[in-house]
Amino acid sequence: MLTYKKKYNVPYYESDANGNMKLPSIFNVALQLSGEQSLSLGVSDIWLKETYDYTWVVVEYAIDIARLPRFNETITIETFATSYNKFFCYRDFVFYAENGEKLLTISSTFVLLDISHRKVVHVEEAIVAPYQTEKVSKMVRGHKFGELNADTMIERDFHVRFNDIDQNGHVNNSKYFDWMIDPLGFDFLSGHVPEKIYLKYIKEVMYGVDVLSRVDMRDKTSHHEIKTASNHAQAEITWREK
Amino acid sequence: MLTYKKKYNVPYYESDANGNMKLPSIFNVALQLSGEQSLSLGVSDIWLKETYDYTWVVVEYAIDIARLPRFNETITIETFATSYNKFFCYRDFVFYAENGEKLLTISSTFVLLDISHRKVVHVEEAIVAPYQTEKVSKMVRGHKFGELNADTMIERDFHVRFNDIDQNGHVNNSKYFDWMIDPLGFDFLSGHVPEKIYLKYIKEVMYGVDVLSRVDMRDKTSHHEIKTASNHAQAEITWREK
Repeated sequence: MLTYKKKYNVPYYESDANGNMKLPSIFNVALQLSGEQSLSLGVSDIWLKETYDYTWVVVEYAIDIARLPRFNETITIETFATSYNKFFCYRDFVFYAENGEKLLTISSTFVLLDISHRKVVHVEEAIVAPYQTEKVSKMVRGHKFGELNADTMIERDFHVRFNDIDQNGHVNNSKYFDWMIDPLGFDFLSGHVPEKIYLKYIKEVMYGVDVLSRVDMRDKTSHHEIKTASNHAQAEITWREK
Repeated sequence: MLTYKKKYNVPYYESDANGNMKLPSIFNVALQLSGEQSLSLGVSDIWLKETYDYTWVVVEYAIDIARLPRFNETITIETFATSYNKFFCYRDFVFYAENGEKLLTISSTFVLLDISHRKVVHVEEAIVAPYQTEKVSKMVRGHKFGELNADTMIERDFHVRFNDIDQNGHVNNSKYFDWMIDPLGFDFLSGHVPEKIYLKYIKEVMYGVDVLSRVDMRDKTSHHEIKTASNHAQAEITWREK
């Protein structure tokens, strides 16, 4: 198991009104780091595309947050693949403060997508061998999401923007999070921080559609869906007061 | 005149569907750099806030683009204050490719805002002396923006999101650009790149409003307004085919 790490200083533009690092930026920086590890091991995203016409796609995240990184804080981010099986590759990201305090852990599940055919393919040995991780027969059991209650949920439309689209030709996965949390409103979001997040990507969102972000808050957990005619993503976020 | 520079590698999440660095990211990274210069000279944004209750606010940009930085390209960004007068401070940002080729130049105009009173204040010697630039009596003449034609313009509403708000408590200035260009649509934006941009910020946008983004395209120049009941920003962008 090879660990790849780097230091990162949280810039102004990745900080929210509270001075906390924005969640979409946390995902962006994490995925950038796994891309850098792949490059360092000779199996870069570009190599993967040119050799196999494949790309890595995240399908699930589980995040435990002790404290969000703060504006101008220098953090250390580590990433390492943990295991894989026929279809799924598992990878963790751990964010540390300068004093070694663990800030948050992201456990992620990736699949390999055939770019031209837009479908999930088997994990090939040659692609994952360089990460030196174990093949397991068992699938990690994903989080079981609760249903939203139509009587209590709130919803809001979001228009997909040009700058939401990434080089994979679909909405970048970090954007879903903005859609998910925004209906909760300024007062809630400036008074609460997430401590546990489960997020599942079901179907990619393309340019030209409006998505519906539905939120149902029960106790301290918000239940989320991103929908068009199809279901695109779901999430559960447990919040605590700031 | 002191120049501050650093190398920067364009990450995946700051690249658009074409693989070009997104314009909002270009502004973000530029402003981050001037913040770093201020810090290195002992006049950081935090010092400015704590000592004077002031913050720097950009009021105008003029940008010349030979080529946009590309995904994964390592660029060098330089910034230096050029001059100042009673109300305005002028600063340039220059982006270079690894071979020294000049990619783009941003000429910017800043004012100092009194945070509690939300008003522009005189430039104080003690704040700008460390940048070692010249006080001039003359104001730089700003760009004169054309009117939009109500018969030909298109418009679209945008909802201000929680993650649009920065630690100054208003919409971060890079967000305006997303609103401005988005009505032009995917086909236009994936077939054209900007070569000249004038952008003027008139009034800050706060949380809770929807803004109207108006665009009028004449020849190869798009004319832009961001409006609520007030005028918040205007821009002109000259485009070329990719």
